[in-house]
Amino acid sequence: MPRRTSQWARARFEECRIARLATVSRDGTPHLVPVVFAVIGDTVVTAVDHKPKSTDRLRRLTNVAAEPRVCLLVDAYDEDWSRLWWARADGRAEVVDEPATEVVAALAERYQQYEGRPPRGPYVLIGIERWSGWSAAPEDTAPPEEWA
Amino acid sequence: MPRRTSQWARARFEECRIARLATVSRDGTPHLVPVVFAVIGDTVVTAVDHKPKSTDRLRRLTNVAAEPRVCLLVDAYDEDWSRLWWARADGRAEVVDEPATEVVAALAERYQQYEGRPPRGPYVLIGIERWSGWSAAPEDTAPPEEWA
Repeated sequence: MPRRTSQWARARFEECRIARLATVSRDGTPHLVPVVFAVIGDTVVTAVDHKPKSTDRLRRLTNVAAEPRVCLLVDAYDEDWSRLWWARADGRAEVVDEPATEVVAALAERYQQYEGRPPRGPYVLIGIERWSGWSAAPEDTAPPEEWA
Repeated sequence: MPRRTSQWARARFEECRIARLATVSRDGTPHLVPVVFAVIGDTVVTAVDHKPKSTDRLRRLTNVAAEPRVCLLVDAYDEDWSRLWWARADGRAEVVDEPATEVVAALAERYQQYEGRPPRGPYVLIGIERWSGWSAAPEDTAPPEEWA
Protein backbone atom coordinates (compact mmCIF):
# COMPACT_ATOMS: atom_id res chain seq x y z
CA MET A 1 0.00 0.00 0.00
CA PRO A 2 1.95 2.99 -1.24
CA ARG A 3 -0.37 5.64 0.25
CA ARG A 4 1.10 7.42 3.26
CA THR A 5 -0.37 9.12 6.27
CA SER A 6 -0.96 12.85 6.64
CA GLN A 7 1.75 12.90 9.32
CA TRP A 8 4.21 11.36 6.88
CA ALA A 9 3.29 13.87 4.18
CA ARG A 10 3.57 16.84 6.50
CA ALA A 11 7.02 15.66 7.63
CA ARG A 12 8.19 15.52 4.00
CA PHE A 13 7.17 19.15 3.56
CA GLU A 14 9.10 20.10 6.69
CA GLU A 15 12.21 18.49 5.22
CA CYS A 16 12.06 19.79 1.67
CA ARG A 17 13.62 23.07 0.62
CA ILE A 18 11.35 23.75 -2.32
CA ALA A 19 7.73 23.05 -3.24
CA ARG A 20 5.59 23.71 -6.29
CA LEU A 21 2.50 25.85 -5.87
CA ALA A 22 -0.45 25.32 -8.19
CA THR A 23 -3.05 28.06 -8.42
CA VAL A 24 -5.99 28.50 -10.76
CA SER A 25 -6.66 31.70 -12.67
CA ARG A 26 -10.07 33.31 -12.97
CA ASP A 27 -10.54 31.70 -16.38
CA GLY A 28 -9.81 28.26 -14.95
CA THR A 29 -6.24 27.81 -16.18
CA PRO A 30 -3.78 26.10 -13.81
CA HIS A 31 -0.54 27.95 -13.02
CA LEU A 32 2.63 26.56 -11.46
CA VAL A 33 5.58 28.18 -9.77
CA PRO A 34 8.25 26.82 -7.41
CA VAL A 35 8.26 28.35 -3.94
CA VAL A 36 10.43 28.36 -0.85
CA PHE A 37 8.22 27.97 2.17
CA ALA A 38 7.87 27.18 5.85
CA VAL A 39 5.41 24.94 7.70
CA ILE A 40 3.74 26.33 10.82
CA GLY A 41 1.37 23.73 12.20
CA ASP A 42 -1.10 23.13 9.41
CA THR A 43 -0.24 26.31 7.57
CA VAL A 44 2.27 26.64 4.74
CA VAL A 45 3.70 30.14 4.31
CA THR A 46 5.57 31.58 1.38
CA ALA A 47 6.34 35.13 0.31
CA VAL A 48 7.27 37.33 -2.58
CA ASP A 49 10.93 38.10 -1.91
CA HIS A 50 13.92 39.80 -3.44
CA LYS A 51 14.64 37.08 -5.98
CA PRO A 52 14.25 38.66 -9.43
CA LYS A 53 10.86 37.84 -10.88
CA SER A 54 9.57 37.43 -14.39
CA THR A 55 6.98 39.91 -15.56
CA ASP A 56 4.07 37.71 -14.50
CA ARG A 57 5.40 37.63 -10.96
CA LEU A 58 2.09 38.54 -9.41
CA ARG A 59 -0.01 35.99 -11.21
CA ARG A 60 0.03 33.65 -8.21
CA LEU A 61 -1.36 36.50 -6.08
CA THR A 62 -4.06 37.46 -8.58
CA ASN A 63 -5.06 33.83 -8.87
CA VAL A 64 -5.31 33.31 -5.13
CA ALA A 65 -7.49 36.40 -4.78
CA ALA A 66 -9.96 34.95 -7.28
CA GLU A 67 -9.69 31.27 -6.27
CA PRO A 68 -8.23 30.50 -2.84
CA ARG A 69 -7.99 26.74 -3.40
CA VAL A 70 -4.38 25.79 -4.12
CA CYS A 71 -2.22 22.67 -4.19
CA LEU A 72 1.41 22.21 -3.14
CA LEU A 73 3.74 19.34 -4.03
CA VAL A 74 7.14 18.15 -2.88
CA ASP A 75 8.78 15.11 -4.45
CA ALA A 76 12.00 13.21 -5.00
CA TYR A 77 13.24 11.61 -8.17
CA ASP A 78 15.60 8.67 -8.27
CA GLU A 79 16.56 6.42 -11.16
CA ASP A 80 15.68 3.58 -8.81
CA TRP A 81 11.93 3.93 -9.08
CA SER A 82 11.42 1.94 -5.89
CA ARG A 83 12.68 5.07 -4.10
CA LEU A 84 10.24 7.57 -5.61
CA TRP A 85 7.92 9.49 -3.36
CA TRP A 86 5.84 12.65 -3.27
CA ALA A 87 3.75 14.56 -0.76
CA ARG A 88 0.86 16.88 -1.51
CA ALA A 89 -0.89 19.59 0.49
CA ASP A 90 -4.32 20.86 -0.51
CA GLY A 91 -5.60 24.01 1.10
CA ARG A 92 -6.91 27.53 0.88
CA ALA A 93 -4.64 30.49 0.45
CA GLU A 94 -4.89 34.11 1.45
CA VAL A 95 -2.62 36.99 0.57
CA VAL A 96 -1.39 38.98 3.56
CA ASP A 97 0.64 42.18 3.33
CA GLU A 98 1.65 42.36 6.96
CA PRO A 99 1.88 38.90 8.48
CA ALA A 100 2.39 37.96 12.10
CA THR A 101 5.96 38.09 13.34
CA GLU A 102 6.13 34.31 13.62
CA VAL A 103 5.43 33.97 9.90
CA VAL A 104 8.35 36.16 8.92
CA ALA A 105 10.51 34.44 11.53
CA ALA A 106 9.63 30.96 10.27
CA LEU A 107 10.88 31.76 6.80
CA ALA A 108 13.99 33.56 8.05
CA GLU A 109 14.87 30.65 10.33
CA ARG A 110 14.51 28.16 7.53
CA TYR A 111 16.43 30.04 4.83
CA GLN A 112 19.63 31.79 5.77
CA GLN A 113 19.22 33.65 2.48
CA TYR A 114 16.58 35.72 4.27
CA GLU A 115 18.91 36.68 7.12
CA GLY A 116 18.95 40.43 7.32
CA ARG A 117 16.74 40.57 4.24
CA PRO A 118 13.29 39.21 5.12
CA PRO A 119 10.81 38.84 2.25
CA ARG A 120 9.20 42.16 1.41
CA GLY A 121 5.93 40.36 0.75
CA PRO A 122 3.12 40.08 0.15
CA TYR A 123 2.96 36.79 2.02
CA VAL A 124 0.75 33.85 1.05
CA LEU A 125 -0.69 31.87 3.96
CA ILE A 126 -2.12 28.50 3.00
CA GLY A 127 -4.32 26.69 5.47
CA ILE A 128 -3.80 23.01 4.65
CA GLU A 129 -7.00 20.97 4.71
CA ARG A 130 -5.42 17.74 3.50
CA TRP A 131 -1.88 16.35 3.66
CA SER A 132 -1.40 13.27 1.48
CA GLY A 133 1.50 11.30 0.14
CA TRP A 134 2.74 8.38 -1.86
CA SER A 135 5.86 6.29 -1.76
CA ALA A 136 6.87 3.44 -4.01
CA ALA A 137 8.53 1.69 -1.10
CA PRO A 138 6.59 -0.51 1.33
CA GLU A 139 5.39 1.32 4.41
CA ASP A 140 7.86 -0.31 6.79
CA THR A 141 10.89 0.70 4.74
CA ALA A 142 13.25 3.12 6.42
CA PRO A 143 13.46 6.36 4.46
CA PRO A 144 16.55 6.71 2.27
CA GLU A 145 19.20 8.98 3.77
CA GLU A 146 18.54 11.75 1.30
CA TRP A 147 15.08 12.21 2.75
CA ALA A 148 16.60 13.70 5.86
CA MET B 1 16.34 40.14 -17.26
CA PRO B 2 15.64 36.75 -15.69
CA ARG B 3 12.96 35.73 -18.20
CA ARG B 4 14.16 33.09 -20.66
CA THR B 5 13.18 32.18 -24.19
CA SER B 6 10.80 29.43 -25.16
CA GLN B 7 13.74 27.56 -26.67
CA TRP B 8 15.57 27.73 -23.37
CA ALA B 9 12.52 26.49 -21.48
CA ARG B 10 11.91 23.63 -23.88
CA ALA B 11 15.55 22.54 -23.56
CA ARG B 12 15.21 22.41 -19.77
CA PHE B 13 12.27 20.03 -20.15
CA GLU B 14 14.31 17.83 -22.47
CA GLU B 15 17.02 17.58 -19.80
CA CYS B 16 14.90 16.99 -16.71
CA ARG B 17 13.87 13.55 -15.55
CA ILE B 18 10.72 14.58 -13.72
CA ALA B 19 8.09 17.30 -14.07
CA ARG B 20 5.03 18.29 -12.09
CA LEU B 21 1.67 18.20 -13.81
CA ALA B 22 -1.06 20.56 -12.64
CA THR B 23 -4.62 19.80 -13.67
CA VAL B 24 -7.91 21.32 -12.59
CA SER B 25 -10.87 19.29 -11.40
CA ARG B 26 -14.42 19.91 -12.53
CA ASP B 27 -15.10 21.89 -9.35
CA GLY B 28 -12.12 24.15 -10.02
CA THR B 29 -9.63 22.66 -7.57
CA PRO B 30 -6.00 22.42 -8.69
CA HIS B 31 -4.31 19.01 -8.50
CA LEU B 32 -0.60 18.20 -8.66
CA VAL B 33 1.30 15.02 -9.38
CA PRO B 34 4.89 14.38 -10.45
CA VAL B 35 5.28 12.70 -13.84
CA VAL B 36 8.00 11.15 -15.92
CA PHE B 37 7.63 12.36 -19.47
CA ALA B 38 9.12 12.79 -22.92
CA VAL B 39 9.18 15.78 -25.26
CA ILE B 40 8.28 15.23 -28.91
CA GLY B 41 8.43 18.53 -30.74
CA ASP B 42 5.92 20.72 -28.96
CA THR B 43 4.15 17.82 -27.31
CA VAL B 44 4.84 16.47 -23.84
CA VAL B 45 3.81 12.86 -23.32
CA THR B 46 3.35 10.96 -20.09
CA ALA B 47 1.57 7.75 -19.22
CA VAL B 48 0.01 5.74 -16.46
CA ASP B 49 2.56 2.99 -15.85
CA HIS B 50 3.29 0.08 -13.57
CA LYS B 51 4.45 2.19 -10.63
CA PRO B 52 2.06 1.52 -7.75
CA LYS B 53 -0.57 4.25 -7.54
CA SER B 54 -2.54 5.71 -4.70
CA THR B 55 -6.28 5.26 -4.86
CA ASP B 56 -6.82 8.60 -6.60
CA ARG B 57 -4.51 7.53 -9.38
CA LEU B 58 -6.94 8.43 -12.11
CA ARG B 59 -7.77 11.92 -10.90
CA ARG B 60 -5.37 13.46 -13.40
CA LEU B 61 -7.23 11.65 -16.19
CA THR B 62 -10.68 12.64 -14.93
CA ASN B 63 -9.51 16.22 -14.62
CA VAL B 64 -8.09 16.37 -18.13
CA ALA B 65 -11.31 14.99 -19.56
CA ALA B 66 -13.24 17.86 -17.95
CA GLU B 67 -10.62 20.61 -18.39
CA PRO B 68 -7.88 20.05 -20.96
CA ARG B 69 -5.80 23.06 -19.93
CA VAL B 70 -2.82 21.91 -17.87
CA CYS B 71 0.50 23.26 -16.68
CA LEU B 72 3.86 21.50 -16.32
CA LEU B 73 6.90 22.66 -14.35
CA VAL B 74 10.53 21.61 -14.08
CA ASP B 75 12.86 23.37 -11.68
CA ALA B 76 16.15 23.21 -9.81
CA TYR B 77 16.85 24.19 -6.23
CA ASP B 78 20.23 25.29 -4.97
CA GLU B 79 21.17 26.92 -1.68
CA ASP B 80 22.93 29.48 -3.85
CA TRP B 81 19.82 31.31 -4.99
CA SER B 82 21.67 32.87 -7.90
CA ARG B 83 21.52 29.40 -9.46
CA LEU B 84 17.77 28.86 -9.21
CA TRP B 85 15.76 28.31 -12.37
CA TRP B 86 12.47 26.90 -13.54
CA ALA B 87 10.72 26.21 -16.82
CA ARG B 88 7.00 26.00 -17.43
CA ALA B 89 4.89 24.53 -20.21
CA ASP B 90 1.25 25.51 -20.63
CA GLY B 91 -0.88 23.45 -22.93
CA ARG B 92 -3.90 21.32 -23.61
CA ALA B 93 -4.01 17.67 -22.74
CA GLU B 94 -5.86 14.73 -24.17
CA VAL B 95 -6.09 11.19 -22.86
CA VAL B 96 -5.23 8.52 -25.43
CA ASP B 97 -5.57 4.79 -24.86
CA GLU B 98 -3.62 3.65 -27.88
CA PRO B 99 -0.99 6.20 -28.80
CA ALA B 100 1.22 6.28 -31.88
CA THR B 101 4.26 4.02 -31.79
CA GLU B 102 6.59 7.02 -31.54
CA VAL B 103 4.94 8.11 -28.32
CA VAL B 104 5.56 4.78 -26.62
CA ALA B 105 9.07 4.69 -28.06
CA ALA B 106 9.90 8.20 -26.82
CA LEU B 107 9.15 7.22 -23.24
CA ALA B 108 10.91 3.88 -23.50
CA GLU B 109 14.02 5.51 -24.97
CA ARG B 110 14.15 8.09 -22.22
CA TYR B 111 13.56 5.77 -19.26
CA GLN B 112 15.32 2.43 -19.19
CA GLN B 113 12.81 1.52 -16.48
CA TYR B 114 10.30 1.10 -19.31
CA GLU B 115 12.51 -1.33 -21.24
CA GLY B 116 10.52 -4.48 -21.83
CA ARG B 117 7.70 -2.98 -19.79
CA PRO B 118 6.21 -0.04 -21.66
CA PRO B 119 3.53 1.98 -19.86
CA ARG B 120 0.19 0.23 -20.00
CA GLY B 121 -1.52 3.59 -20.38
CA PRO B 122 -3.67 5.49 -20.77
CA TYR B 123 -1.28 8.08 -22.20
CA VAL B 124 -1.64 11.81 -21.77
CA LEU B 125 -0.57 13.92 -24.75
CA ILE B 126 -0.11 17.60 -23.99
CA GLY B 127 0.14 20.04 -26.86
CA ILE B 128 2.28 22.87 -25.50
CA GLU B 129 1.04 26.32 -26.44
CA ARG B 130 3.61 28.25 -24.40
CA TRP B 131 7.08 27.39 -23.13
CA SER B 132 8.39 29.89 -20.59
CA GLY B 133 11.18 30.03 -18.08
CA TRP B 134 13.03 31.99 -15.47
CA SER B 135 16.56 31.93 -14.20
CA ALA B 136 18.11 33.97 -11.41
CA ALA B 137 21.38 34.14 -13.33
CA PRO B 138 22.02 36.75 -16.02
CA GLU B 139 21.20 35.59 -19.52
CA ASP B 140 24.81 35.23 -20.65
CA THR B 141 25.76 32.94 -17.78
CA ALA B 142 26.78 29.44 -18.77
CA PRO B 143 24.44 26.87 -17.26
CA PRO B 144 25.72 25.12 -14.14
CA GLU B 145 26.99 21.62 -14.79
CA GLU B 146 24.06 20.00 -13.06
CA TRP B 147 21.73 21.33 -15.73
CA ALA B 148 23.15 18.82 -18.19
